[in-house]
Amino acid sequence: MTETGAELAQLVSLGAEYNAQLAARWRVLPLFQEDAPEARLKALAPGVRLLVTSARVGLSDEALRALPDLRAICSWGVGCDALPLESARARGIVVSNTPDVLSECVADMAWGLLLAGARQIPAGDRYARSGRWVKQGKFPLGTQVWGKRLGILGMGRIGEAIARRGQGFGMTTRYHNRRPRADLPDYGYEPSLIELARWADFLVVACPGGEATRHLVDAPVLQALGPQGLLVNIARGSVVDESALIPMLRSGAVGGAGLDVFEHEPGVPAELAAIDHVALMPHAASGTRETAGRMSQLVIDNLNAWQDEQRLLTPVV
Amino acid sequence: MTETGAELAQLVSLGAEYNAQLAARWRVLPLFQEDAPEARLKALAPGVRLLVTSARVGLSDEALRALPDLRAICSWGVGCDALPLESARARGIVVSNTPDVLSECVADMAWGLLLAGARQIPAGDRYARSGRWVKQGKFPLGTQVWGKRLGILGMGRIGEAIARRGQGFGMTTRYHNRRPRADLPDYGYEPSLIELARWADFLVVACPGGEATRHLVDAPVLQALGPQGLLVNIARGSVVDESALIPMLRSGAVGGAGLDVFEHEPGVPAELAAIDHVALMPHAASGTRETAGRMSQLVIDNLNAWQDEQRLLTPVV
Repeated sequence: MTETGAELAQLVSLGAEYNAQLAARWRVLPLFQEDAPEARLKALAPGVRLLVTSARVGLSDEALRALPDLRAICSWGVGCDALPLESARARGIVVSNTPDVLSECVADMAWGLLLAGARQIPAGDRYARSGRWVKQGKFPLGTQVWGKRLGILGMGRIGEAIARRGQGFGMTTRYHNRRPRADLPDYGYEPSLIELARWADFLVVACPGGEATRHLVDAPVLQALGPQGLLVNIARGSVVDESALIPMLRSGAVGGAGLDVFEHEPGVPAELAAIDHVALMPHAASGTRETAGRMSQLVIDNLNAWQDEQRLLTPVV
Repeated sequence: MTETGAELAQLVSLGAEYNAQLAARWRVLPLFQEDAPEARLKALAPGVRLLVTSARVGLSDEALRALPDLRAICSWGVGCDALPLESARARGIVVSNTPDVLSECVADMAWGLLLAGARQIPAGDRYARSGRWVKQGKFPLGTQVWGKRLGILGMGRIGEAIARRGQGFGMTTRYHNRRPRADLPDYGYEPSLIELARWADFLVVACPGGEATRHLVDAPVLQALGPQGLLVNIARGSVVDESALIPMLRSGAVGGAGLDVFEHEPGVPAELAAIDHVALMPHAASGTRETAGRMSQLVIDNLNAWQDEQRLLTPVV
């Protein structure tokens, strides 16, 4: 086997166990350890029929043009912003992602950030570790979670998983969505986001990103959430207007926040990082070993389905 | 009204709104702003029939001896270690605490620490705030929570509230208790704590403190929990042998921990504070504004019941 005979180009590692599954079936070109994988890909392009990438690494239109024999792109992750969807569609190249398998871990993180924000877990951790507990005495009181009002923006698979967890905490749950879901009678539909924010003690953002939802959570929505309200975002940074949120958190116009995503990642604005009473995570809501493995397996399952039956399990194109 | 005519001595503040309720009914001696409240109490003791204190402030046997007319001690909090229970009983003085009203907030914190420990929320917060996210890239993967095995040590009111929350996370739940609870058929009873630890992914300590449970979670139990297991303690620091736990967390023999309580409070051992992948809180599991208010109201309800009907609502003696 020579590199020029490769049929599957791998721009990202799926983990040792899953890489071995790929190598057992295809002649693999493992480009993920290269400094300029796309350049190398173009040089070796002829014969490459299958490509493995990720939502973060993606594939450029330019690199796609250099792959005359490509038939399928199988991407690890959910986001498609970095994938050449239109060019692929035009050439009849199929594209898959790995949806759904991460919903439950993302819902866990939504609850982790809700509890961490309301009960001040990162601030408490700093207080205990730094010795302030000894010097300054009792840690300030937090906000009760159980039995409160849970508002969910976006009632898809993740929103539903967040709502289901809320039942064990005795929450009353309402949601805002493009349309009501008749299959979820336990939760109230609220056609106005601003009314949902006014009603809610905790507003959890769980809708898709992209232009359609950009700055959906803006200053008026945050004002409706108010000084007793807490915002959780495990969706995309673009959904929340950070330039409105940050001064409102500083002034107390919004009570608190638990944020996994930010408008300009990686990184957190300095003014936000300076606020003690918020809980921040570096975009890790789906980041568990178990979910990473399920996503890798779903990439391979898509490749196998394409090889054996010329269909994808989770197509986006 | 002179101070010497006081009938209710108040060693702790219950909050402005609740202090006003006391002052509306009784001649109050507010000692909580004094440097040496017990000394002052003894000087003014005759006539004091009622005393308000807390689990933390308590009342010494010596001060009790100086209160010839005392009839009732109403304490804010659950713990009774700092209360003169035996001396009170011998003199026919009744004592109340404020149980039950904090169970649900403590169960919330158990889940907050479980999620924060498994998904590395305090470490992730540090990673995002410090700029390491920008410099070092993706945050390490955490451990999945949903669908795992939840072991609960102590199936009282708090344990039950923790188990109930677990249902929304799809957990399989077993518990160890002095006896099985026939009213909780959804959860399996495990007569051996070490077997519970071996079975569980997450072991949550929710039993009472005191000599009977001292170091119940010792090295063999922690070894059974193992490198994939995570320990949560929202009960009392005395239940866990910290001198066994800390080196096992450092070596990876125990996977992780979320701890609200410690053997020598206030304060966290330096070797524990140096471990990045644990979540620590300064004994704040019941610490919400809402629960604090409910506890204050229950102190007053006990005083009213004693005044009106010579009985306590939540007696301990």
